[in-house]
Amino acid sequence: MAAWGERLAGVRGVLLDISGVLYDGGEDGGSPIPGSVEAVARLKRSRLKVRFCTNESQKSRGNLVGLLRRLGFDISEGEVTAPAPAASLILKERGLRPHLLVHDGVRSEFDQNDMSNPNCVVIADAGEAFSYQNMNKAFQVLMELENPVLISLGKGRYYKETSGLMLDVGAYTKALEYACGIEAEVVGKPSPEYFRSALKEMAVEAHEAVMIGDDIVGDVGGAQRCGMRALQVRTGKFSLANTSGEAVAR
Amino acid sequence: MAAWGERLAGVRGVLLDISGVLYDGGEDGGSPIPGSVEAVARLKRSRLKVRFCTNESQKSRGNLVGLLRRLGFDISEGEVTAPAPAASLILKERGLRPHLLVHDGVRSEFDQNDMSNPNCVVIADAGEAFSYQNMNKAFQVLMELENPVLISLGKGRYYKETSGLMLDVGAYTKALEYACGIEAEVVGKPSPEYFRSALKEMAVEAHEAVMIGDDIVGDVGGAQRCGMRALQVRTGKFSLANTSGEAVAR
Repeated sequence: MAAWGERLAGVRGVLLDISGVLYDGGEDGGSPIPGSVEAVARLKRSRLKVRFCTNESQKSRGNLVGLLRRLGFDISEGEVTAPAPAASLILKERGLRPHLLVHDGVRSEFDQNDMSNPNCVVIADAGEAFSYQNMNKAFQVLMELENPVLISLGKGRYYKETSGLMLDVGAYTKALEYACGIEAEVVGKPSPEYFRSALKEMAVEAHEAVMIGDDIVGDVGGAQRCGMRALQVRTGKFSLANTSGEAVAR
Repeated sequence: MAAWGERLAGVRGVLLDISGVLYDGGEDGGSPIPGSVEAVARLKRSRLKVRFCTNESQKSRGNLVGLLRRLGFDISEGEVTAPAPAASLILKERGLRPHLLVHDGVRSEFDQNDMSNPNCVVIADAGEAFSYQNMNKAFQVLMELENPVLISLGKGRYYKETSGLMLDVGAYTKALEYACGIEAEVVGKPSPEYFRSALKEMAVEAHEAVMIGDDIVGDVGGAQRCGMRALQVRTGKFSLANTSGEAVAR
């Protein structure tokens, strides 16, 4: 325990990944990971600042928070950093009009964006909406642009649901990158902008913060590159094979 | 014309790509590229040996040849080199039992393969069968294998149908490679084995052969790396943007 005390000396803020750390999603809504509801409650009773940092891009923040509250978590929308609202702001700042390749559950996050005559594609974890037809439409939109812009909400390889491992947005982003000969811009973990914006919202410096996640690249690697400390949990998509750095992102 | 004569001096065999060179596919069966039916007929009347070298992996050789014959081409099954029959042989030689992520039209090429308890995945241009569910199933099969083997029939980025550009198998192969952290084995153009086997079937040496295709990487680059000459046509997916080496494969 002395070792833990040293490792966490000076920590003022805790960033918690959601999927695989607080709960495993699933068609039935998913289920909390044992002990996590109480762990969040204890953190919130402590002197530490807490922020929920997710790459969830199938659900709007409102839907995600509603689900987590029903599972017993003490969480509110204002405490969540998620890629879709961040992407919506970036699109407006840059005058980008998105063609959306996303799940219906997250579409409302883009209500303020102009969708006419698209000049970029936004790809998120679309799940079942990753049909050939929808992928091909996004591909064709990109191929018709002089300077194709592809914005990817995260670059996760897969995540865990109660029914098993599920392909994440990163795999489909790679498909479009290869087909179009372009590189996507990532909004979400592990991009440094994402972690910096979460730290700013907590008013905590990087060296005072610890990221807790199940993903060795998206959570642990990304946070460490920003000067934060990081802990990998052994739940979610964690497996011994992943400790070598083969896992990625949600 | 003298220049052409010099460039083609000593040529005894012509390898013809099919999609984008002889015809553009489409839901209605597609349509021949103007002049191509007559060009094939003239080649066959000449002293040159002719072989049709395709990465077509949505249709069995029988279905493809039937379609081309209906469009007016002089072509028979024995003159076609295609990746699915080659893959079927490789699977048997190596004791591999495939999980197929392919179009129904090509499934019959694998009738001789044992599909029980799969120990590899074969991915082809599955078209509409590239649903999220089918992709995720293939991903899960690979993740459960100790040594995941992914065999990809070609690595094309896209091809042209009468209705427009269409995502090809290479894009989906990249998705699975990224998700699983593996590299696929390619059966088909531009793999050297593919060209060598076509040359062997023609009984022609590499320096005596010319490949004619619309793909700068899959057709032209692949053939040149095997010591063949190559010509890129300006039909099919050819576009001026592609001449810089950005196009790939079918």
